[in-house]
Amino acid sequence: MKYNKKELLKTKIEHIDIKKFNAIPLIDSFDRMAFQSRNLARSCKIYEKMLNDKDCVIILCLAGSLVSAGLKKIIIELIKNNMIDVIVSTGAIVVDQDFFEGLGFNHYKGFVSADDNQLRELMIDRIYDTFIDEKDLRVCDMTTKKIADSMKPGAYSSREFINKMGEYLEKNGKAESFVHEAYIKDIPIFCPAFSDSSAGFGLVFHQSEKRDKSIAIDSVKDFRELTEIKVNSKDTGLLMIGGGVPKNFVQDTVVAADILGVDAPMHKYAIQLTVADERDGALSGSTLKEANSWGKVDSGLEQMVYGEATVIFPLLASYAYHKKSWKNRKEKRFNKIFKEQS
Amino acid sequence: MKYNKKELLKTKIEHIDIKKFNAIPLIDSFDRMAFQSRNLARSCKIYEKMLNDKDCVIILCLAGSLVSAGLKKIIIELIKNNMIDVIVSTGAIVVDQDFFEGLGFNHYKGFVSADDNQLRELMIDRIYDTFIDEKDLRVCDMTTKKIADSMKPGAYSSREFINKMGEYLEKNGKAESFVHEAYIKDIPIFCPAFSDSSAGFGLVFHQSEKRDKSIAIDSVKDFRELTEIKVNSKDTGLLMIGGGVPKNFVQDTVVAADILGVDAPMHKYAIQLTVADERDGALSGSTLKEANSWGKVDSGLEQMVYGEATVIFPLLASYAYHKKSWKNRKEKRFNKIFKEQS
Amino acid sequence: MKYNKKELLKTKIEHIDIKKFNAIPLIDSFDRMAFQSRNLARSCKIYEKMLNDKDCVIILCLAGSLVSAGLKKIIIELIKNNMIDVIVSTGAIVVDQDFFEGLGFNHYKGFVSADDNQLRELMIDRIYDTFIDEKDLRVCDMTTKKIADSMKPGAYSSREFINKMGEYLEKNGKAESFVHEAYIKDIPIFCPAFSDSSAGFGLVFHQSEKRDKSIAIDSVKDFRELTEIKVNSKDTGLLMIGGGVPKNFVQDTVVAADILGVDAPMHKYAIQLTVADERDGALSGSTLKEANSWGKVDSGLEQMVYGEATVIFPLLASYAYHKKSWKNRKEKRFNKIFKEQS
Amino acid sequence: MKYNKKELLKTKIEHIDIKKFNAIPLIDSFDRMAFQSRNLARSCKIYEKMLNDKDCVIILCLAGSLVSAGLKKIIIELIKNNMIDVIVSTGAIVVDQDFFEGLGFNHYKGFVSADDNQLRELMIDRIYDTFIDEKDLRVCDMTTKKIADSMKPGAYSSREFINKMGEYLEKNGKAESFVHEAYIKDIPIFCPAFSDSSAGFGLVFHQSEKRDKSIAIDSVKDFRELTEIKVNSKDTGLLMIGGGVPKNFVQDTVVAADILGVDAPMHKYAIQLTVADERDGALSGSTLKEANSWGKVDSGLEQMVYGEATVIFPLLASYAYHKKSWKNRKEKRFNKIFKEQS
Repeated sequence: MKYNKKELLKTKIEHIDIKKFNAIPLIDSFDRMAFQSRNLARSCKIYEKMLNDKDCVIILCLAGSLVSAGLKKIIIELIKNNMIDVIVSTGAIVVDQDFFEGLGFNHYKGFVSADDNQLRELMIDRIYDTFIDEKDLRVCDMTTKKIADSMKPGAYSSREFINKMGEYLEKNGKAESFVHEAYIKDIPIFCPAFSDSSAGFGLVFHQSEKRDKSIAIDSVKDFRELTEIKVNSKDTGLLMIGGGVPKNFVQDTVVAADILGVDAPMHKYAIQLTVADERDGALSGSTLKEANSWGKVDSGLEQMVYGEATVIFPLLASYAYHKKSWKNRKEKRFNKIFKEQS
Repeated sequence: MKYNKKELLKTKIEHIDIKKFNAIPLIDSFDRMAFQSRNLARSCKIYEKMLNDKDCVIILCLAGSLVSAGLKKIIIELIKNNMIDVIVSTGAIVVDQDFFEGLGFNHYKGFVSADDNQLRELMIDRIYDTFIDEKDLRVCDMTTKKIADSMKPGAYSSREFINKMGEYLEKNGKAESFVHEAYIKDIPIFCPAFSDSSAGFGLVFHQSEKRDKSIAIDSVKDFRELTEIKVNSKDTGLLMIGGGVPKNFVQDTVVAADILGVDAPMHKYAIQLTVADERDGALSGSTLKEANSWGKVDSGLEQMVYGEATVIFPLLASYAYHKKSWKNRKEKRFNKIFKEQS
Repeated sequence: MKYNKKELLKTKIEHIDIKKFNAIPLIDSFDRMAFQSRNLARSCKIYEKMLNDKDCVIILCLAGSLVSAGLKKIIIELIKNNMIDVIVSTGAIVVDQDFFEGLGFNHYKGFVSADDNQLRELMIDRIYDTFIDEKDLRVCDMTTKKIADSMKPGAYSSREFINKMGEYLEKNGKAESFVHEAYIKDIPIFCPAFSDSSAGFGLVFHQSEKRDKSIAIDSVKDFRELTEIKVNSKDTGLLMIGGGVPKNFVQDTVVAADILGVDAPMHKYAIQLTVADERDGALSGSTLKEANSWGKVDSGLEQMVYGEATVIFPLLASYAYHKKSWKNRKEKRFNKIFKEQS
Repeated sequence: MKYNKKELLKTKIEHIDIKKFNAIPLIDSFDRMAFQSRNLARSCKIYEKMLNDKDCVIILCLAGSLVSAGLKKIIIELIKNNMIDVIVSTGAIVVDQDFFEGLGFNHYKGFVSADDNQLRELMIDRIYDTFIDEKDLRVCDMTTKKIADSMKPGAYSSREFINKMGEYLEKNGKAESFVHEAYIKDIPIFCPAFSDSSAGFGLVFHQSEKRDKSIAIDSVKDFRELTEIKVNSKDTGLLMIGGGVPKNFVQDTVVAADILGVDAPMHKYAIQLTVADERDGALSGSTLKEANSWGKVDSGLEQMVYGEATVIFPLLASYAYHKKSWKNRKEKRFNKIFKEQS
């Protein structure tokens, strides 16, 4: 069967709106049940605790194809309503998916059984059951190059670069984007493996053109800045969607603070929604109790929930949104700390 | 830390009520997203199609610790509202969990990190994060013996025995039970591996006492009866929670019909909610497309959803309940066929 | 692409021979490593302990598509060399796969990406990457009917029927079969869900023809017989490949013995090779420590290994074979107990 | 139960030696079987093809806790025998685990059920069933700081820094290390998320002390260098252990080359050993066929094997080692390209 590109890129992925359904009764029922429903309910209660704890800075960690799957609006709501204060993410989510959509491009409903050879010929990229027009992605790559070209040569943290991306969307954005929303709310976004994204392509092109006058993305600076936030926060809570580098990176700030001579407490709260398990010893699925042995996550208020993010993240976010504890939270605007420094 | 039995068996598991929350807006959003949320939405639409198809007999397959986890009331609602016509289940769900609760016993909220040695000393059985008083289970075992003792010697299908259990609850029941509800609605319940349950204990005791005058559970008769239902149904749809023996057994009826010389169609619709995957070649995780090669499940209206039942079964059931297509469905009362035969 | 049946059923699955490679050095290395390699090594050492414990009866539990995948010869070697004393299995392994091959039929190397619609038209059944000629399977179904037809009416345990299948192969077998080998060695094989197999088809046909003069498969009798073996064994060890009904059934014998008034000890040793995990509360993936809370499996000498059976079962079996502890083991010939009774 | 630190850190993890057992007969048997054993055999054959293809540059990708689990010696053998030409890894494997051992420290056999609170008090870090003395890790952190302090200020690729680490071990090393071995053989090692490791701690300390005179780790430079290798290779093959950032990063080089105006072919061969699956749409478990739609991996000579690395990587590596095709391979010494440039 021959595909037609237009036919394949017809139905756009739409982002779920947590304001339009109230998960509180469901989660309250889950709390009286067992297995992952109860684990999910417990994680909702822990998130509630974080939101009510005035001393707690909340760090959202993102890994997996979350925005392409329709979860962008959730992240935007969390930002808008002061429900998180910092984001640590993979590059793909921030650049290839969110910034990409901010530029006006879309993800499309596809199907798993597609013939990948034919898709390639049509320049359509597949993520499980989702399609992307590769031509759009190339525009996204080149936009990051354009942003890099406009910057003063030097070593930047990914946070600084992503802030520039938000600024770019402020002027040129065509659709909702959490990068843009974070820019407005001065919320720092860190990508510890930033080159591993569409921005990597743009930056490689930038460096190969500008040579000595190019910018660099210094991941050590990222680590330094995130540690500074940790040091300046009385307590911290982690809301982790998936594992990967963001999970490891943010946990490590406790140790980094210690090395810098600051006695920072462990992360007081920690939630992870994941499909990974602990049995291969890899970090993505390692339990939060294991993290306690490393002195990174406190025990007692931590919870792993085993499930796929597109189903369970909306429930958790809707619960917390409708509980309205965020109404009493103050915005932190951590990006301002760094603005004042430079 | 020493446990105290009373302390450990304090908080009862409560069963979720799908009437109390409406999953339609959530599922409609999921349908426009990706990954398992969209798979779940698609399975909801297929279940809707089954309910609207007047020629379709709907078979519910149950595996895993569903009732102990708080999903009993869902199954009761599906029965009450003519949303299913036949049940195929593991013995543990039917006897150890549902009938057990019908006798007035409970499951309790426990925790995964419990010391299993101490639990054993206290006669507390653990299922992941749930506790059971083993003394209660022993009463359940003995009740099945009592039922067997009251029956005329001979070979019975599990369906016949479970019907007797429903009758027992009609007189002696102390709490809601889907075995009881199915008894009232003449819905057949099959357990192809019936001895592999609390009833097995009772029946072993029964046989060892009664010897020649005991009853037997003939699993061939089960297969014959279920095939008869298949043969008498124009079309069939499968709603499978978990895999295991029920999944295999119900799929096999198509072949069994064929062997009996009846040209029964493949199952027209099929949904499976599961955490298993296909990579070890075991049946529980085998795709429904694979079942198509066997001539068991038709292609086109089948869907696997990868997720844990306590989270996703309530969403699917609530969606179908609130769609109200069941209002036009007629009850099948298949148990009556067999009553008339005997 | 159109398939041709002959082309698709060209290359036979061949069964691995544990005598032809020595896994001892590999397992000894694994023992000094981590994660699943060390878990596998530990399970090998526990199996060794079972083989050296003169009071220990070893029960092999089988679930998943093991024989179609090339593991038949391993089971045969375990039987031949007195490395196991009892088998509890799913019906599919015993009838559709092993007995099927004993009749001279084969499984074929296939591929996952096959078009299942076309396979169905060609009467080819697929198990992941393996093909079966459905015509051969139908012969297998009918052979079980023939065996049933030849038996005196009455209620039989699956063990008795499978013993008859072994007898049939003794006369008519065309290829190696563990059902046949167990027949020779008087090793009982139990299938608690026996109808859920190719034999189910034959038996349904048998009963629909013979009506009052037919045989029944009484799964309670299975449970009673297996419990009798448990009661007659000083100690027991479980070697479980996969989970499902066999795992539950064999564990339950401890409780069944208790109910019959016999104070049987818990299973002293227990190994499970599985891909399932505990997070959905289902039995297949429940930990052996959880089984300890139920008083079924002793703690200390139990081990779960997370891995796929085709890779890790050959390593475990080869290790035990080459260690040669089985040379001092005596055969138990449990089938003789039951012969004498009847 | 109170632990004693000395008791807990008693038994060192030992690294498996693929020269000491020959996996060829096992893999040849696996090739005639099904499921993951056959997938593993197929991946071995593909790796063989890579080794025999004179135009093929082989890139090893590493993610997960591989060295702490006893797989270090395998990587060293692959380097020594010209079986790989480039390494892309997580920072933890390179710094916290391999370089750490090169400094003379060890990983220890631990256990999963350890009390993590007590471990933390004893400064023992746990990875599933493995223990680490946190004091040793701190020395490792500080050693990376010392190396950074000794370098000329500027922006470096992780490859350059890791080369310095190899140089450090050349003088000060106390035990085998693949970082050291790669240094000797001029094999480039890339860590796209380098700060996410013990080196991150050292570098944060370094930057906070040296401020303007510090070094930066420019991950764009990594991407540029790896792309340069891709561009300079006629064909490429990927041997991926785990997923994560290394998998994504190395696949992206095809696109990066394209953006730089070079028409580089897709990766011709690709193998991934992983426990992840595709169902959550995350990259770690995405199929290699999906990568084909992106134009990154060619179809035909790609294979996913689902299994845990400690069990299956030794089998694959031993097979390839004993096949001896590497004897005809020439060393590539890619680090020399970059030396000549600078």
